[in-house]
Amino acid sequence: MRSHLRILMASVLASAAALAVGAQAFAQTDPLASWSEGSAKQAIVRFVKDTTDASSPKFVPPAERIATFDNDGTLWPSHPMYTQLAFALDRIEALAPQHPEWKTKQPFEAVLADDLEALGAAGEKGMVELVMASHAGMSTAEFEAIVTDWFAKARHPRFHRPYTELAYRPMLELLEYLRANGFKTYIVSGGGVEFMRPMTEKVYGIPPEQVVGSTIKTKYEVRNGVPVLMRLPEIGFIDDKAGKPVGINEFIGRRPIAAFGNSDGDREMLEWTAAGGGARLKMLVLHDDAEREYAYGPANGLPATRFGTFSQSLMDEAKKKGWVVISMRADWKQIFAP
Amino acid sequence: MRSHLRILMASVLASAAALAVGAQAFAQTDPLASWSEGSAKQAIVRFVKDTTDASSPKFVPPAERIATFDNDGTLWPSHPMYTQLAFALDRIEALAPQHPEWKTKQPFEAVLADDLEALGAAGEKGMVELVMASHAGMSTAEFEAIVTDWFAKARHPRFHRPYTELAYRPMLELLEYLRANGFKTYIVSGGGVEFMRPMTEKVYGIPPEQVVGSTIKTKYEVRNGVPVLMRLPEIGFIDDKAGKPVGINEFIGRRPIAAFGNSDGDREMLEWTAAGGGARLKMLVLHDDAEREYAYGPANGLPATRFGTFSQSLMDEAKKKGWVVISMRADWKQIFAP
Repeated sequence: MRSHLRILMASVLASAAALAVGAQAFAQTDPLASWSEGSAKQAIVRFVKDTTDASSPKFVPPAERIATFDNDGTLWPSHPMYTQLAFALDRIEALAPQHPEWKTKQPFEAVLADDLEALGAAGEKGMVELVMASHAGMSTAEFEAIVTDWFAKARHPRFHRPYTELAYRPMLELLEYLRANGFKTYIVSGGGVEFMRPMTEKVYGIPPEQVVGSTIKTKYEVRNGVPVLMRLPEIGFIDDKAGKPVGINEFIGRRPIAAFGNSDGDREMLEWTAAGGGARLKMLVLHDDAEREYAYGPANGLPATRFGTFSQSLMDEAKKKGWVVISMRADWKQIFAP
Repeated sequence: MRSHLRILMASVLASAAALAVGAQAFAQTDPLASWSEGSAKQAIVRFVKDTTDASSPKFVPPAERIATFDNDGTLWPSHPMYTQLAFALDRIEALAPQHPEWKTKQPFEAVLADDLEALGAAGEKGMVELVMASHAGMSTAEFEAIVTDWFAKARHPRFHRPYTELAYRPMLELLEYLRANGFKTYIVSGGGVEFMRPMTEKVYGIPPEQVVGSTIKTKYEVRNGVPVLMRLPEIGFIDDKAGKPVGINEFIGRRPIAAFGNSDGDREMLEWTAAGGGARLKMLVLHDDAEREYAYGPANGLPATRFGTFSQSLMDEAKKKGWVVISMRADWKQIFAP
């Protein structure tokens, strides 16, 4: 019931804000309390004021207030590896007893032997094989149960907390702040849509129908008189890089006026968002805080990474186009909830 | 602005209804005034009462009140042909001067010569060729402009009105009634999603992000420094028959609790809807009114059709499973707005 109450409240708040009678009431405490005073926070507050003030030339009607968020590295950590990859590896280990052939077959052998070098060498093809072996061959309902169960048990290897408790607090505040001002918040992630949907409402307050992600194909079947959707070992759509504007257009059908990312995978989403008319907010989270979270780029001389590359060319494009770069170290007072 | 006001009002009404303080206020006038008193109307009213009464064992929280509607033949006519086919044929004629080769190439020759027999003989393969020639090769923004322009000018050949004025009045009342009771209304149609989105908000009060349909593939490109999505001559997804549950799962991520269709293309959507737990409403519009609209089946001995087949086997399944069949003749006092 709590999540329903939450949606109900969000809906009432959104209506109130849209009617411009309730917005002030929520300004008594700072809705962005975990953000340091600085240009990033100022950019957010100014954008929301401009787009929600009916007398502003930058006013945007509530129906068009679409904000899209990347997930991994933007709303929660993508290190030491993508959460979904951690899930896939756990699934491979759990399924291994039924697949004795995996002991001598890459990339499975690498997973079972914890051989990260061989796993890296398997490349993208290897990753697809792991995803297919761990994410397909069951119904959507069965997969949802497997994912839900995994989220309940799995712990982040460094922070020793459930992944679902590691959403960045400043971003949770930002999501709420936008929704309280009549925005509709979406996830637009390279991650699998059916891996995310079981947790996005609880963790981010984002309902399943506002989650856009990569898909594998499904097939409608009637099994013992009961309709099911079977997950096939076949990629449907990759919602990353140039796929993000495609996914946004296909699933949402409106261009966002605000977009948030953290890596080269988000470049085209921000370009697409920027290319519309009127006020636009484009922000990128830079992971420059090895102490409290992680530090990687290789932009700004930070270490390179396989999981969430923020290249120097992306940094250059951001500077040239006035996209706002959020420094985790400088802009966020807190990273996680205590 | 009117459509924004409409959404804003719907949002406020939905919140009010959800809080169970406002529902009575709207009962003063009959929200389903175009429906004859009878089992179809009763089924709707009973379902909405059951699912919105917090003390009912059939109560459904607002977030889960998802209702999906087929479009062609369910919300507006699909005769004498699908509206989108009429659009495609008009486009072929408009583009013909740039394609002299079409004069001697099927299925284009058939279109240009008004040869319905040859067009029928071209079959599904011919239809796909016509769609590709008329729906691809431009940006999504260019296509939206073409569609919007066409809807402004095109007239239905029998009713001599814009297609956008031919939404069935009883269904418009039903959409509003559901939304006023906290339901989220979706279109789930075999039609092209980018053909429908330019008109669904104005005609049905359904925003672009709540339209699920067939897609063609698009590709992100930067043309002269401006990001565009180019429409490719390649089918992405066919949202019909067994594709409807797939589309519902992929785009909405929740199972509907109410589904409305009119043909064999909607069978699996109704089965998928019915297979969830709790209260469910499944309805099929039967076109049995040749005088005011059209009559076709071949169910119940009505004439067969290429556009919206309601087979006897669908009718048998509906009877067996308690799906409600709406007789246009008996259940609808009015078909169109005057």
